[in-house]
Amino acid sequence: MPDAKLLEVFPTPSDTPFVIEHVAEEFTSVCPVTGHPDFGTVTLRFEPRGAKAGGVCVELKSLKLYLQSFRNEGIYYEAVTNAIRDDLAAAMKPAWLVVKTDWKGRGGIRSVIRATSGPAPAEWLR
Amino acid sequence: MPDAKLLEVFPTPSDTPFVIEHVAEEFTSVCPVTGHPDFGTVTLRFEPRGAKAGGVCVELKSLKLYLQSFRNEGIYYEAVTNAIRDDLAAAMKPAWLVVKTDWKGRGGIRSVIRATSGPAPAEWLR
Amino acid sequence: MPDAKLLEVFPTPSDTPFVIEHVAEEFTSVCPVTGHPDFGTVTLRFEPRGAKAGGVCVELKSLKLYLQSFRNEGIYYEAVTNAIRDDLAAAMKPAWLVVKTDWKGRGGIRSVIRATSGPAPAEWLR
Amino acid sequence: MPDAKLLEVFPTPSDTPFVIEHVAEEFTSVCPVTGHPDFGTVTLRFEPRGAKAGGVCVELKSLKLYLQSFRNEGIYYEAVTNAIRDDLAAAMKPAWLVVKTDWKGRGGIRSVIRATSGPAPAEWLR
Amino acid sequence: MPDAKLLEVFPTPSDTPFVIEHVAEEFTSVCPVTGHPDFGTVTLRFEPRGAKAGGVCVELKSLKLYLQSFRNEGIYYEAVTNAIRDDLAAAMKPAWLVVKTDWKGRGGIRSVIRATSGPAPAEWLR
Amino acid sequence: MPDAKLLEVFPTPSDTPFVIEHVAEEFTSVCPVTGHPDFGTVTLRFEPRGAKAGGVCVELKSLKLYLQSFRNEGIYYEAVTNAIRDDLAAAMKPAWLVVKTDWKGRGGIRSVIRATSGPAPAEWLR
Amino acid sequence: MPDAKLLEVFPTPSDTPFVIEHVAEEFTSVCPVTGHPDFGTVTLRFEPRGAKAGGVCVELKSLKLYLQSFRNEGIYYEAVTNAIRDDLAAAMKPAWLVVKTDWKGRGGIRSVIRATSGPAPAEWLR
Amino acid sequence: MPDAKLLEVFPTPSDTPFVIEHVAEEFTSVCPVTGHPDFGTVTLRFEPRGAKAGGVCVELKSLKLYLQSFRNEGIYYEAVTNAIRDDLAAAMKPAWLVVKTDWKGRGGIRSVIRATSGPAPAEWLR
Amino acid sequence: MPDAKLLEVFPTPSDTPFVIEHVAEEFTSVCPVTGHPDFGTVTLRFEPRGAKAGGVCVELKSLKLYLQSFRNEGIYYEAVTNAIRDDLAAAMKPAWLVVKTDWKGRGGIRSVIRATSGPAPAEWLR
Amino acid sequence: MPDAKLLEVFPTPSDTPFVIEHVAEEFTSVCPVTGHPDFGTVTLRFEPRGAKAGGVCVELKSLKLYLQSFRNEGIYYEAVTNAIRDDLAAAMKPAWLVVKTDWKGRGGIRSVIRATSGPAPAEWLR
Repeated sequence: MPDAKLLEVFPTPSDTPFVIEHVAEEFTSVCPVTGHPDFGTVTLRFEPRGAKAGGVCVELKSLKLYLQSFRNEGIYYEAVTNAIRDDLAAAMKPAWLVVKTDWKGRGGIRSVIRATSGPAPAEWLR
Repeated sequence: MPDAKLLEVFPTPSDTPFVIEHVAEEFTSVCPVTGHPDFGTVTLRFEPRGAKAGGVCVELKSLKLYLQSFRNEGIYYEAVTNAIRDDLAAAMKPAWLVVKTDWKGRGGIRSVIRATSGPAPAEWLR
Repeated sequence: MPDAKLLEVFPTPSDTPFVIEHVAEEFTSVCPVTGHPDFGTVTLRFEPRGAKAGGVCVELKSLKLYLQSFRNEGIYYEAVTNAIRDDLAAAMKPAWLVVKTDWKGRGGIRSVIRATSGPAPAEWLR
Repeated sequence: MPDAKLLEVFPTPSDTPFVIEHVAEEFTSVCPVTGHPDFGTVTLRFEPRGAKAGGVCVELKSLKLYLQSFRNEGIYYEAVTNAIRDDLAAAMKPAWLVVKTDWKGRGGIRSVIRATSGPAPAEWLR
Repeated sequence: MPDAKLLEVFPTPSDTPFVIEHVAEEFTSVCPVTGHPDFGTVTLRFEPRGAKAGGVCVELKSLKLYLQSFRNEGIYYEAVTNAIRDDLAAAMKPAWLVVKTDWKGRGGIRSVIRATSGPAPAEWLR
Repeated sequence: MPDAKLLEVFPTPSDTPFVIEHVAEEFTSVCPVTGHPDFGTVTLRFEPRGAKAGGVCVELKSLKLYLQSFRNEGIYYEAVTNAIRDDLAAAMKPAWLVVKTDWKGRGGIRSVIRATSGPAPAEWLR
Repeated sequence: MPDAKLLEVFPTPSDTPFVIEHVAEEFTSVCPVTGHPDFGTVTLRFEPRGAKAGGVCVELKSLKLYLQSFRNEGIYYEAVTNAIRDDLAAAMKPAWLVVKTDWKGRGGIRSVIRATSGPAPAEWLR
Repeated sequence: MPDAKLLEVFPTPSDTPFVIEHVAEEFTSVCPVTGHPDFGTVTLRFEPRGAKAGGVCVELKSLKLYLQSFRNEGIYYEAVTNAIRDDLAAAMKPAWLVVKTDWKGRGGIRSVIRATSGPAPAEWLR
Repeated sequence: MPDAKLLEVFPTPSDTPFVIEHVAEEFTSVCPVTGHPDFGTVTLRFEPRGAKAGGVCVELKSLKLYLQSFRNEGIYYEAVTNAIRDDLAAAMKPAWLVVKTDWKGRGGIRSVIRATSGPAPAEWLR
Repeated sequence: MPDAKLLEVFPTPSDTPFVIEHVAEEFTSVCPVTGHPDFGTVTLRFEPRGAKAGGVCVELKSLKLYLQSFRNEGIYYEAVTNAIRDDLAAAMKPAWLVVKTDWKGRGGIRSVIRATSGPAPAEWLR
């Protein structure tokens, strides 16, 4: 089941703001209604706070394990997106964070959900 | 015939604003003049109101059935687009909503219609 | 319902063998089990017999109307493909004929069915 | 020869502003200097005035016939673009209008011309 | 765990040979060494025996459930491919069968495995 | 109207067989039934006979003018293709010749016609 | 050698501002250090001043000859871009002008240079 | 090991601001944890100060050698990006600078890091 | 330096012939003349001998380490390709083997080298 | 002017037949009629004779200089192709050789010429 404690962070290497994007194209969870698997791509974009302000980045291997912890969880698209946003915002306290999930189609409809934490600039939302 | 009562909603999972996009690539209706079928893609983008404000999301299976109810309806591109916008705005009362319909060509001309409800940010119109 | 009598033909303009391909990207029928619409692309490839041998080509508008006659028919992928092959083979008696149907995904699986009539060369099967 | 009287309009179905895009990929006219044909794509984007303000949309078949009336006209790229803009602005009196013509290459140079009428938002110019 | 008994078949609708292709882009299993998930696309191509010879086709929903039964199985690429080939060949006894698995990269290397049963024509192998 | 006398040829520069392909993406003629313009791409592939055998190649500017002579001709797809094949075969007497015409869609169906003269190798037909 | 006198202009056909883009994909000059040829694409975008203000457009054939005059010139990427900007700004005195040069790779690095004259809107810089 | 002294500069050819982009698709360094090589694309975008203000551009061959100096260095994605930004900002003192690194996937996650120096316009960040 | 002893194999899981393809997009070695790095993609395709005949497959992690052992080796394209072919043929003794190396451009020329061992079918060479 | 003496060769590294492909995307010569530059891509494919039979490969830098020697030569497409084929066949005496030239469009027609020396397998001609 999803486990935010798997997330590890490390100090940002700079006081200058910069933007990090991680794209995980191999995400899967389970539809809570039908029990069938859902597949999607999870994109994170965030600006760590500066080093002197205690800013941190998420460690990549821990992020992989955290995302894998959704594998057999029955959970809706919207809830996955908000859960990842909340867990990462809590773990990193970034200047801002965007979480975008892009789901393969079901019944001829494919969906994209975007959730934010903090003042994410408009150009990072798409 | 198009039937807005098919649309079902569920409460938004968050108080933080977020953006949902659904893309239905298998839409068909009928040209009211020639009786020939029209084919297109319908894209919805909206921001539900916050959970405490009673915000809701459209349920995906009900959206599929609603869109299928246009299958044998004789109706113009512009009217389809405005009808979907009106029905979804009434059903969800979202912070804002964009409906975009992208039609396969007829007579060497293909068309894209975009209608909005509420203050849709410019970056979501395209 | 599918109506082979809609198909009209006209004499081939040449005694030299040549190959005709028609691609109809806007095909729809209905799943006989779920009642949900299916969408696909139908590709025909054939070589009319020579003019002196009475060879004929299918007329394009009649082909469009014939394919539209499947719109509200409950019928499986495999049966659609074999029905179109049989109806066109009967109407044109071509030197050979390939019918390929390419279906949008259902439940994460998309399908392509190919049926032939007569000695279709291998390079026209894919 | 180009004939603006071919353009027909119909009342917009809504008081809410919305945006219509028509893309005609099969445009041809003739170079007035060399007599050789030019080929291009004509894109229209416009916002009709609201229904209560007497807003109208261009009818698609009449638009096709109007664009075909340039077929054997000797006329420069820039003049085509401004003529279409002027004729459509006169016929529809839209809130705003963008006309974009995208020409196949000549002598290793391909050209794109964009003309506007009224306050077209920047995001619709590209 | 993988369960061939999930596979269901139905009689082929024709005596004329034809070719069926199913592409499942949402396959996942687990690496038996690292325990990390593997993701890939599974493509089946086969020719059912003729109807009079008792030829059958695999039913799509049962195929989906069968492929899902690999979800939490620790198994190598090569073994997945051979297992699917063996199970489908046993269930359908087709004239010929090709199973192709196309795996997302691991450590900068991505792999494609192809296994066959019966005299699969060369043009269906790629 | 189509005028084969516009075609000019020049001697092939080699006795060794070689293959020439010309692709004209800006072809237009007129539908003889509706009077609406048709647009397509014309592809020629041929092997000139050797220089000592009097082999010739078609001159590019004359080919352009010849193809332009169809601009206002009312003529079917199949007839265009066979006419170009016949005119070029007569003008060049090549070892073999393939003419392929690829037409933009009409009524949701797009067509490709291929005609040959002489023993065109299978790999040049597609 | 580059020769700005090759550039010819003609009066703009409109008082309404509009935007012209010319893309020349077949530009070549010579590296002043190695003597090896450089290849790139030159894109111009500009808004002519209004007709009453004496606005002019560059004539396409003269532009082609002007760009060809760099063919055997030893000159750096940055200098090419600034030279074209200066020559065209002097010849047309446009409301604004963007010159973009996009160079094929050298040593694994490819470069894009953009220079402007006048208040070019940000959306035309990319 | 990374060596900023390899970077050479030359005077900007213009007082008008302009924008330079260099894209190096063949960057490689080493993961400091696993010792395995990392591969990515490094994109630089910057505006040199004007010529009178002493503005300079980075010389391309020196840039290539500088980027090659990371080849066997054990260093994190984020540190590479900030190091290149710092070294180039120190060498050129540009009006502004964007460094973007786009890394091939590891464990199913691919990353993009963007760092800036000075007031980089938002449209150059993506 | 290249080290064939890094290659490990495991027994093939089947007696039925099947085809394995591994694509390593992150290959790098060094040009023996200039000392600059070369980058390319290495593709292997092979058919292991049957299990009863002692057929084996190359283990993926050992393949990765083997390919990495070329990282700082000065070696020509043709020699790399033949070396990999020889080492893998010796390690696996496959029914047949194709090694294809696809190199990024140098001086405007990019190269593809293909070497084989045993009777590789023509359709696997491209 | 074209200078075959620029071509240098080196001994093939293997007795086993293998296939080499070089693609030069930056070729330019001059039209002998109009004096305007032509641009194209030159592709070579060949199999060197075995090492013991004295087989050789063309050296890449010499190939680049040889192709550059056409830069200001007035020469037809067909003659370029046959000249390169003849010069390379003379320099390398390969088992077989294919030369393909792919030219940017002129007057709306683009051309591809293929010439061979020796028994080039059909799969290498396209």
